[in-house]
Amino acid sequence: MRRYSPVRFTDVVFEDAFWRERLETVLTRTIPSQHERLRDHGILESLTVPQPPPPLRIPPGEHGLSMQVFWDSDVGKWIESASYVLAHRRDPAIEAHIDEITDWLEKAQLPDGYLNCWYLGREPDRRWTNLRDRHELYCAGHLLEGAIAYAQATGRRRLLDILCRYVDHIAETFGTGPGQKRGYCGHQEIELALMKLYHATGNRKYLDLAAYFIDERGNAPPHYFDVEARARGDDPAKYWFGTYEYSQSHMPVRRQRTVVGHAVRAMYMYAAMADLAADLADDSLREACEALWQHVTTKRMYVTAGIGPSASNEGFTQDYDLPNETAYAETCAAVALIFWAQRMLHLDCDGRYADVLETALYNGALSGLSRDGTHYFYQNPLASDGSHTRWQWHTCPCCTMNVSRLVASVGGYFYSVGRGAVAVHLYGSSRATLTVGGSPIRLRQESDYPWSGRVKITVDLDAPSQFTLKLRIPGWARPATVNVAGRALASTAPQRGYVDIARTWQAGDVVELELPMPVERVHANPLVQADAGRICLRRGPLIYCVEQADHPQSTIDLLRLPHDVPLQPVTRPDLFGGIVTIVAQARELSGDAPDAPLYSARPFEARPAALTAIPYFLWNNRGANRMRVWLPQT
Amino acid sequence: MRRYSPVRFTDVVFEDAFWRERLETVLTRTIPSQHERLRDHGILESLTVPQPPPPLRIPPGEHGLSMQVFWDSDVGKWIESASYVLAHRRDPAIEAHIDEITDWLEKAQLPDGYLNCWYLGREPDRRWTNLRDRHELYCAGHLLEGAIAYAQATGRRRLLDILCRYVDHIAETFGTGPGQKRGYCGHQEIELALMKLYHATGNRKYLDLAAYFIDERGNAPPHYFDVEARARGDDPAKYWFGTYEYSQSHMPVRRQRTVVGHAVRAMYMYAAMADLAADLADDSLREACEALWQHVTTKRMYVTAGIGPSASNEGFTQDYDLPNETAYAETCAAVALIFWAQRMLHLDCDGRYADVLETALYNGALSGLSRDGTHYFYQNPLASDGSHTRWQWHTCPCCTMNVSRLVASVGGYFYSVGRGAVAVHLYGSSRATLTVGGSPIRLRQESDYPWSGRVKITVDLDAPSQFTLKLRIPGWARPATVNVAGRALASTAPQRGYVDIARTWQAGDVVELELPMPVERVHANPLVQADAGRICLRRGPLIYCVEQADHPQSTIDLLRLPHDVPLQPVTRPDLFGGIVTIVAQARELSGDAPDAPLYSARPFEARPAALTAIPYFLWNNRGANRMRVWLPQT
Repeated sequence: MRRYSPVRFTDVVFEDAFWRERLETVLTRTIPSQHERLRDHGILESLTVPQPPPPLRIPPGEHGLSMQVFWDSDVGKWIESASYVLAHRRDPAIEAHIDEITDWLEKAQLPDGYLNCWYLGREPDRRWTNLRDRHELYCAGHLLEGAIAYAQATGRRRLLDILCRYVDHIAETFGTGPGQKRGYCGHQEIELALMKLYHATGNRKYLDLAAYFIDERGNAPPHYFDVEARARGDDPAKYWFGTYEYSQSHMPVRRQRTVVGHAVRAMYMYAAMADLAADLADDSLREACEALWQHVTTKRMYVTAGIGPSASNEGFTQDYDLPNETAYAETCAAVALIFWAQRMLHLDCDGRYADVLETALYNGALSGLSRDGTHYFYQNPLASDGSHTRWQWHTCPCCTMNVSRLVASVGGYFYSVGRGAVAVHLYGSSRATLTVGGSPIRLRQESDYPWSGRVKITVDLDAPSQFTLKLRIPGWARPATVNVAGRALASTAPQRGYVDIARTWQAGDVVELELPMPVERVHANPLVQADAGRICLRRGPLIYCVEQADHPQSTIDLLRLPHDVPLQPVTRPDLFGGIVTIVAQARELSGDAPDAPLYSARPFEARPAALTAIPYFLWNNRGANRMRVWLPQT
Repeated sequence: MRRYSPVRFTDVVFEDAFWRERLETVLTRTIPSQHERLRDHGILESLTVPQPPPPLRIPPGEHGLSMQVFWDSDVGKWIESASYVLAHRRDPAIEAHIDEITDWLEKAQLPDGYLNCWYLGREPDRRWTNLRDRHELYCAGHLLEGAIAYAQATGRRRLLDILCRYVDHIAETFGTGPGQKRGYCGHQEIELALMKLYHATGNRKYLDLAAYFIDERGNAPPHYFDVEARARGDDPAKYWFGTYEYSQSHMPVRRQRTVVGHAVRAMYMYAAMADLAADLADDSLREACEALWQHVTTKRMYVTAGIGPSASNEGFTQDYDLPNETAYAETCAAVALIFWAQRMLHLDCDGRYADVLETALYNGALSGLSRDGTHYFYQNPLASDGSHTRWQWHTCPCCTMNVSRLVASVGGYFYSVGRGAVAVHLYGSSRATLTVGGSPIRLRQESDYPWSGRVKITVDLDAPSQFTLKLRIPGWARPATVNVAGRALASTAPQRGYVDIARTWQAGDVVELELPMPVERVHANPLVQADAGRICLRRGPLIYCVEQADHPQSTIDLLRLPHDVPLQPVTRPDLFGGIVTIVAQARELSGDAPDAPLYSARPFEARPAALTAIPYFLWNNRGANRMRVWLPQT
């Protein structure tokens, strides 16, 4: 039922442009610095079991849980990110680091295959006793993703073999058979990783295990988390979080129609559900995915495609509850939304999935990484009083390696291949080598995207070939114009987000695409109280923000944007290596005069003031300062 | 240095009007029901020491403290409220209840005068070891205020004598003399109560003790709370709240210029400081008070005069940080702001103090009590998604008796008397008997205030008398017109908020005051981000809100108020016993259509929709439902 398949990110090579710069930063700065931090924070040392473990570095929180239980996952995600780097360009130093980690894991693994360094080092007798809170299967999933990526990048299978033995142990432990535990993880992740392993190996048992975890989730009574709590001697009614919505295990997944709980857990689960829906042609999973997609994108998503407004559950609250300054909008959640969006796109090549994928990529996810590649956001608020800033590391460093693995593999999101068709989802100067119907197709994109909407695609083939080139026309870019081999396409009205060009292609054929990129005022649904009376600025795929750093003469909180002033895109080669800003003649209100009242029956006076907006993902690269995405409009 | 003195609330008798109804409700429903709740929740039983105390009803919180340590204060505040009732009209049942409490307290009191029922019942050896957290002196202060009120209402001194013995013990225990502890309470209150005791008795030692507590506060090093923590074996650096700003003891009070920390503690302290500034002619205290007043009213106060936006410290955060839906704005804090405002008014009869006093009275404080007199708000948000509602009681019932003691004594805020002058601060149908220069003056007000700004004041005297009648012209009511004995006053431009009418008054002289009450759109300072692009509606002293209950055809979150539509006051005899609503032709946006997008480059469509606003203090008297004070303006 999967109509399109992803391409390998290594098949897309970026040329001088937007993604080339970011990829280089991740390759040369992010990955090495992350390894240093994993070492300095004791995370690598925690793998060297069975040694007597050192004292806890992260003391237990209110529910008696040290966040060190997640550490295996951080290592797994670093291996995955680093392997993506190796896939671009081999590096003996990185490979030596991964080999060292592999040595530790090999030594730690029990004869039965079990491999969780927290439990092996500290509580060997308590393994598999608290799936609800302790992230054992989550950690296994991330180690597995790392091992798959390393094997694919280098051909070296030792780490993958270790993980496959662990997966075999997991498959023996969990299931519906006699003597098996009917458990599943409190933090979904392994389901998605098992689907990757299935796709990498073709071995059906991995798919079956993923399907088991998805099918079993939320069944009750008895609810598995209740069962295991009682087995530990705990009262299930005293669950510290209070509701299984937190882990989307409050009901069987096929019945779920509302996005609830922890945002990252939700997104990882939905991604696995979409994979399973495709591989098993399971309409009930697909329908759940479609309903959940509709819900999150029409009721519970920031304009940046950040998701999960609340810190208390790192997740979802109510419809239209999208506060800006306190937005949690975890980087991991935006990255995971991209994973899910891509899988939905492969189920059904509809531009609405690609639109959200692109929005998350250029905004809510990319904001998580600083321009220098070594500072991160965990939360991505849409407004700041100047107190929010990037950090070099985090008690829970999940986001660091999520954004690096995304950027290092971003080429994989540009294209999909279907039967007799190539879909182009994203634009940017690059060379791609794809295979359609067994024949290689080379596509060269030349573009200044996302700064310009003009894209030239040159097709190179060994021989003339008939296939459909599906060009995505983003929701913001209508009407687009398309020339094929010098002739304007008669109709460029996209069907479900794509213009299909079906023809016999010749080597050297050129497609010229023009996506209009006016600056737009975006209105939020009026039920979003946080944005009432406000607009935000968008140009192409980029959401813009106003940062104090660009306004030495004004306090940005005092700026008001008249509804009718022109919004001018201005190229600024001097800023961040060259970007397009948006400039407007705004009004600055007189709120900061020494005698300004707090309340007044007369409107506050206004004077003209220049407003400059920069892309949201670039904010906070000049230190902590005020920022706003949604601007009061007059 | 006090230029004006308060009048006794019993000297002001309300006639059929706004306050008569509320006073009756408090007299007949609130006070009796509060006694029942104090009994049902074990608070009265806790006074019967030394019995073996029953198990804790309120388990310790995160910092190991049961909120039961505050219970003496709740009893004190109830006695105070009930005594105000008795001052209006004696009631044997209430007096019997207070006598019963007096018996318990008499029995509990130690020979040295000590009297805190928590410590006496549970930890007799630990008294005075944790002033920072345990509220001993705070409880003493509230019991003392209750005892003073009871003595003044009934002439019965037994309870007051008990409390005076306790105060004597406190005066021996704390001070700068040899062997004395240099302590003061973590929750200010006793300072204010001691000033009341001084005013009631004229005994200077009570003033000296209040002055000691104020003078000693925040001195360091060593800081007293550090000293006593070490004496308990605790590490002061591990103070659970983290900063002494919480209790305004982070620096000596005379140096404080910024309102910080717990709002109620701050207000009670500032009230005592203003009292001391007046009685000691202490300019340094007065200057601190004036600076703090300026700060809170121009940077940190809601339009309702609610204060303290944050739940985490029940208090202040940053300038202009005034979120609406999460506003804490504790009822107690608005009541305490009124206490402080009245004392500032007596230092300096300036209308800006009376304006805030009136705003707090009719809005931020009165909202704390339901129309039926038996349901309460602890928090007073300025917007609600429908989840906020009144409760019958609270784990910490401080607000219940704060609002009842305010309403029961509201007449005391209407007038002040100075040398040869009577100041009229508030308006409403009532008869007052005052004494100026030894001669009685009877003033009768006839008015529909706050629904109408027309006020007729008839002066009655035993003999012609020369004095100045100072009429407050509220900040919202300009220009006002004033007729005296049938002739229009030549100039009604108020000086610092008051029009002074100096003449020889004859019995039967009539003053007619017309305060214009147009409906106004109030703008918040543009630095208040929560209110950007929004206005609120004010008419006279009342802030209005839009409640879902009045909008069966619309979702109030979708309503937008055009900046130029007329705002019509409409008398509604059918609503809440007769009120004035505000009606306007608003626009309802199309956000709740099934296919409504979350974000759109086109403005959402609008259709005409009627908007009805009711006084803020009346919201949530028809069950939980949505409410907004600040309305998006188009």
